[in-house]
Amino acid sequence: MSLKGDLDRILRRVRGAGFTLRYWDGDTIAYGDGAPEFGLRLPDEATVAWMLGDALVRLPEAYVAGDLGVDGDLQHLLHLCYRVDDRVLAIGPWRKAALALAAFRRRNSLAGAPANVSHHYDIGNEFFATWLDDDMNYSCAYFEHASDDLPTAQRQKLRHICGKLRLQPGDRLLDIGCGWGALARHAATHHGVGVVGITLSEPQRALGQTRVREHGLADRVELRRQDYRELGAETFDRVVSVGMIEHVGERYLPAYMASVARGLRPGGIAVLHTMGKTRKAPVTPWITKHIFPGMYLPTLAELSTHMTNAGLRISDVENLRPHYALTIEAWIDRFEKHADAIARMFDERFVRMWRMYLHAARAAFVFGALNVWQLTCSHGSSDEIPLTRRHLYEAGRG
Amino acid sequence: MSLKGDLDRILRRVRGAGFTLRYWDGDTIAYGDGAPEFGLRLPDEATVAWMLGDALVRLPEAYVAGDLGVDGDLQHLLHLCYRVDDRVLAIGPWRKAALALAAFRRRNSLAGAPANVSHHYDIGNEFFATWLDDDMNYSCAYFEHASDDLPTAQRQKLRHICGKLRLQPGDRLLDIGCGWGALARHAATHHGVGVVGITLSEPQRALGQTRVREHGLADRVELRRQDYRELGAETFDRVVSVGMIEHVGERYLPAYMASVARGLRPGGIAVLHTMGKTRKAPVTPWITKHIFPGMYLPTLAELSTHMTNAGLRISDVENLRPHYALTIEAWIDRFEKHADAIARMFDERFVRMWRMYLHAARAAFVFGALNVWQLTCSHGSSDEIPLTRRHLYEAGRG
Repeated sequence: MSLKGDLDRILRRVRGAGFTLRYWDGDTIAYGDGAPEFGLRLPDEATVAWMLGDALVRLPEAYVAGDLGVDGDLQHLLHLCYRVDDRVLAIGPWRKAALALAAFRRRNSLAGAPANVSHHYDIGNEFFATWLDDDMNYSCAYFEHASDDLPTAQRQKLRHICGKLRLQPGDRLLDIGCGWGALARHAATHHGVGVVGITLSEPQRALGQTRVREHGLADRVELRRQDYRELGAETFDRVVSVGMIEHVGERYLPAYMASVARGLRPGGIAVLHTMGKTRKAPVTPWITKHIFPGMYLPTLAELSTHMTNAGLRISDVENLRPHYALTIEAWIDRFEKHADAIARMFDERFVRMWRMYLHAARAAFVFGALNVWQLTCSHGSSDEIPLTRRHLYEAGRG
Repeated sequence: MSLKGDLDRILRRVRGAGFTLRYWDGDTIAYGDGAPEFGLRLPDEATVAWMLGDALVRLPEAYVAGDLGVDGDLQHLLHLCYRVDDRVLAIGPWRKAALALAAFRRRNSLAGAPANVSHHYDIGNEFFATWLDDDMNYSCAYFEHASDDLPTAQRQKLRHICGKLRLQPGDRLLDIGCGWGALARHAATHHGVGVVGITLSEPQRALGQTRVREHGLADRVELRRQDYRELGAETFDRVVSVGMIEHVGERYLPAYMASVARGLRPGGIAVLHTMGKTRKAPVTPWITKHIFPGMYLPTLAELSTHMTNAGLRISDVENLRPHYALTIEAWIDRFEKHADAIARMFDERFVRMWRMYLHAARAAFVFGALNVWQLTCSHGSSDEIPLTRRHLYEAGRG
């Protein structure tokens, strides 16, 4: 059987939206149902054979290299990937072992974590400023309405999380994985709390601390380049961690939750916000190879188990899954508006890599099994958590 | 070493509120700190030795038999149990094996479940009507304010759950473990839905169906005596299950979650409401021996795992732990007001058994590791769940 024949047989079984495929011999065939939504242009037969040998890594690599041509919206191609026979995208046992070894080599140990963080976050503050909101929130926003614009939704996210934290003036707040400090500044400005934020990215810390000074918050907000395992003995009234657990890694989740509990005084409240898979599974290997080395997205059962073992009692869990799809759609809009400028900062290959990453993430929230868990918990039992969540939805909150 | 000397040594280590203990030889000794809050009167030395040989079962049994005298509030005694050295209340390995065997004999198989349900729920509608609210809600209420009275808090519970279900007029709702039908009647009356409620207790079904007729809802609400494993092929827009998962048992949780998913059309919403332990542990053996044979209280991790495996996607989890303490306090008040009447229905031994059960449950929510999980989920992904939970807190809901 020829490679072309094999591919043709598999693709004829695809149902749903249609697309065209141009083979290496020039043949262009329409698959799926109805009018084609997008077109794919395949490279030479040898490259296609190589691609399909490890499709979850090499299909996006071929797109980034410019070998796999896509005419139309990448979302349609990604939606297709969720509809084809699982066997096409399956990972064999040897490849699984190799991936496990690669993951072990890139584990987020105290020694290894800085390089993994640096790989993603240290590529340039100017680049992130191009397409994030002005406060540089690089995590799922909170849309009161689907039509909210990104800056509004990001402000609402900060308000929603601070509401769950029940911040009181004078409280000490620890922000694990503070990014460029948007949450730290918001909490200090609107709730009168003192904040220590930690990140492993020096560019994040430096720009964040500059903005702290510009906002006149230097007496109340301190951003440090520090690992969560090196926090020391100080305890806080509140702990928050947004979009950080993703970078902890499966093997370090117990140590991470222990750090949260150790940093939180008894009865204190923490809000932990993280992406998580519906079922236990590794992150798509192209993502861990090129975008987020060391990434692991835990299930709710894993989060709950490790929090409980650390003495953190869960009071509330909100799944913000549709909010991350909306957030990434807004990021893609902004990214594409500045694609030329970004290509000048880096190159076209970089633009294609980030386009693929943003689209793949959006698709996982829409078509796949990805969630955003926002968990409220306390260190042991607490009388500081209100009876109901009504306070989060009342007018006039900070 | 004498038994008296052993006991004295252990009790001298207790910190917190004080109490007195009268030994079999007439000696009365004050333990703990400060003025005594309650007094204990021990029976003869041989009975005390027997009690301490399996304290978690025999201490309450001795109280129910009238051998262990308690002067004052049972809560203080139970609080003490949470403060003494774990070794006093520990269960040895042989006893654990015997408990596991007893649990297996009382498992909630299709054949065994009716007897376990009957043991608790078929002891008399008149008895339950004496101390529950008029609608006979026998599960955790929802207190907007701690000062709400029980009927108000139970109505608020029904409204809160129906809000999470997003009921639309004409929807078909399945209520697994419908009790005396309070939720079914509320949903049919205020949301115009059709309801099928199932219970294994014939007295519950019969009184529930009578009330359905009295409320003129017979065309919209049907209560059946049926096991969740025998539901058949009908699918519903919504599924609700309140205070039922407790009676499923660890081994049948996968089958139960599969029944919820099978009964729910794709995209439909379910609300599951259950007590659950913070860490995986068996239910206190006195409770499974005398009050709830077959009871198992799963952790959030277990619930989440089994729901996910069944294809149910979790969107929201609310821990109502403090609400159950308030609910049981109201039940204890009502129970004690009618204790003489209840003693005439049964006997004094029955009154002490139910007093111990209600107090032990309340103590587990205040001092122990017991939670109430209210989980909202959908069958697969759903576009029927709103972006935010604000709708639950807006005025004018049904």
